[in-house]
Amino acid sequence: MFPNEFLGYAAGIITTLALLPQAIKILSTRQTRDISLVWAIAMNTGIILWLLYGLAQGDLPMIAANSFSLILLMLILALKLRYR
Amino acid sequence: MFPNEFLGYAAGIITTLALLPQAIKILSTRQTRDISLVWAIAMNTGIILWLLYGLAQGDLPMIAANSFSLILLMLILALKLRYR
Repeated sequence: MFPNEFLGYAAGIITTLALLPQAIKILSTRQTRDISLVWAIAMNTGIILWLLYGLAQGDLPMIAANSFSLILLMLILALKLRYR
Repeated sequence: MFPNEFLGYAAGIITTLALLPQAIKILSTRQTRDISLVWAIAMNTGIILWLLYGLAQGDLPMIAANSFSLILLMLILALKLRYR
């Protein structure tokens, strides 16, 4: 694997997994008051575009990272709407 | 501008600007209880790697987006540490 690609995979893994503790925190506390709804909506929108961009570029690290991130972000948005 | 590049810029602008309402929300409420510290630390780390990846690829949308995101994420992390 080229060093560049390694960077992309590492970045993707970290920024994707970063969403896990946020999702777990919401699931355990059922509290989302301090989380911005606009952030959650915009991030879902933006990550869909990053995913399309990755697909258009055929960039595997971006495709993998943004697919998984999208799942977690949709969960966080759903929880935010559920536990306003 | 190629359609791909347009996608990248649009994605970058949205996911970068998405951090603004979250930063503003914290600044106005001084509340960060529901925001995961691990998320904030991991996102800073990951975005630095995405920035390095963008530099290595010479990918302008990624470089621009992740530079600005990093500034906002460092602000959010600082606020999270300040207003635990």
